[in-house]
Amino acid sequence: MYLRMTIHLKNMFGNPYYAEKISNALENIELPTTPKNLYEPILYILSLSGKRVRPQLVFMGAQLFGYDDVDTVLPASVAIEYFHNFSLMHDDIMDKAPLRRGKQTVHQRWNDNVAILSGDALLVKSYDELAKCPITVVPELIKTFNRVALEVCEGQQHDMDFEQRNDVSEEEYINMIRLKTSVLLGGALELGAIIAGANAADRLKIYDFGVNLGVAFQLQDDILDTFGDPETFGKQVGGDIIVNKKTILHILLKRALLSEDEAEFNAILELEESAGEEKVRRMIELYNKYKILEQANTLKVKYSTKSLTSLQDINVNDTQKEDLLLLSNSLLNRNK
Amino acid sequence: MYLRMTIHLKNMFGNPYYAEKISNALENIELPTTPKNLYEPILYILSLSGKRVRPQLVFMGAQLFGYDDVDTVLPASVAIEYFHNFSLMHDDIMDKAPLRRGKQTVHQRWNDNVAILSGDALLVKSYDELAKCPITVVPELIKTFNRVALEVCEGQQHDMDFEQRNDVSEEEYINMIRLKTSVLLGGALELGAIIAGANAADRLKIYDFGVNLGVAFQLQDDILDTFGDPETFGKQVGGDIIVNKKTILHILLKRALLSEDEAEFNAILELEESAGEEKVRRMIELYNKYKILEQANTLKVKYSTKSLTSLQDINVNDTQKEDLLLLSNSLLNRNK
Repeated sequence: MYLRMTIHLKNMFGNPYYAEKISNALENIELPTTPKNLYEPILYILSLSGKRVRPQLVFMGAQLFGYDDVDTVLPASVAIEYFHNFSLMHDDIMDKAPLRRGKQTVHQRWNDNVAILSGDALLVKSYDELAKCPITVVPELIKTFNRVALEVCEGQQHDMDFEQRNDVSEEEYINMIRLKTSVLLGGALELGAIIAGANAADRLKIYDFGVNLGVAFQLQDDILDTFGDPETFGKQVGGDIIVNKKTILHILLKRALLSEDEAEFNAILELEESAGEEKVRRMIELYNKYKILEQANTLKVKYSTKSLTSLQDINVNDTQKEDLLLLSNSLLNRNK
Repeated sequence: MYLRMTIHLKNMFGNPYYAEKISNALENIELPTTPKNLYEPILYILSLSGKRVRPQLVFMGAQLFGYDDVDTVLPASVAIEYFHNFSLMHDDIMDKAPLRRGKQTVHQRWNDNVAILSGDALLVKSYDELAKCPITVVPELIKTFNRVALEVCEGQQHDMDFEQRNDVSEEEYINMIRLKTSVLLGGALELGAIIAGANAADRLKIYDFGVNLGVAFQLQDDILDTFGDPETFGKQVGGDIIVNKKTILHILLKRALLSEDEAEFNAILELEESAGEEKVRRMIELYNKYKILEQANTLKVKYSTKSLTSLQDINVNDTQKEDLLLLSNSLLNRNK
């Protein structure tokens, strides 16, 4: 007897055929029934859904190079989603996050120990999936998966280290978000390309496409948190400012700040979270004075351009690139 | 540039040629220099040494079936040692253990978050090693490694769950130690057997040998903590009694206890740790009254016999079994 769960398709993203394959696979994960505190949290986090962007990317990476044996690609796609959810479980402990997608995080609903151990088990499960791929590519898939997995750990460690520092540069920040969130997007595409038998140069290009798209997306995330349309943004605008989060906006402002505004900047940082509205208003005034939004947008465009250039450079028919272009557009032209 | 460490050979165990191979491999682990808080704890825990029993077992599992290409076996051997150290890092957080082999644990020397993330990275590294094995056996190695890895997680979860319970049975306890510590010994031997091309029946037998040896060893550990010779034991005799640890002795006593002794048993459990000597003396009196040492020894013999029977059943020349018999003897006839 195995634990079961129900996953709702409504949040799904991308190609609906792939989405259904992914959803079915995740619904049918086979886990023992005991110990409950080890396996239930795995079903719980997988059922919180999300858009399943990363497993879609594995399929899209294979499809780009003309490979359409969906069932052969599926385990690698599932492996990426398991890894992503493992990293959420552990990151949420480290970040002391109480909520994830509007629901209690695993460590909050159970406890830290349960979240550590269930996360470990889910990471192990991701390699079970990789081992199901065609034997000739398994070592290369693991090598790529692991390179990315270690980078994701590095990104999380940098992020925690940066919390203790006040001198993080633009370059360090972008490197951190690249490692923490973007390499996994590139890596997902690369796994698909490996299964499809793409050559080394093309593998690198599709990886770069994903990584730079991820960086652009993350920069946009920082921008929208402060400058998003409150009507469509879906959460409180200015949340990052209220908790003094070191976003790209914060870092660019700090670098540009003239001595005449240093006292104001520090005063804003010291305002209580309860003075949220005032805090946001005064910080946005500073952002405006230094044209921080424009600078951040310039950076975002730089990375989205890099991303598209890599995709253009891949020597396959343009029609095969359409899905990835659509994806890129939908990720980078959102307002929430 | 890579981080380096020095490992001392003096604690090494088993075949010295294998021991040196293992030691060299661990010393030459290649890790980036940054972020320091991610990679230094890995070198730290690996340098705490220990006897390296598990990686030796991988070699011995291969050797038993006549396979002597040591360099081909080495990565699987290293993978097992990485996994073991990953599990120590995470278990020490969960158990709030301040010391490991007389040195600070990782979470104590750094912090919980560092220990979570470095542990994750070390688990990932273990699969890098598995992927270096001959391509034809990589999927089977991963399948076996993962089966065992999940069982180790299950054992740790049972152990934590049992802390909240007062009705743990002998069978549940033995199942917990089997999962938490013994399957990894059996799994290490099985990885070696897989590389050596052993058939499925022999793989199961060598696995069973390792698992039952591990259970017998763990039971002996419980016995020695209370009944070991203080001259040779190396740590305080009775430590388990003082902290009310639910060892096999505790569980056997609780099951046998007559109502006339219930009050005394509960009174002992409620004694402060500061009344250690009295606590140990009174508990041993109860153990003696109910012949708990004899019962526990009977259990130990049952599992060591099972272990040896499995080894005997393997259809290879007796001389090839000598190293494993020596190992078994040295593990089960120690007094410290």
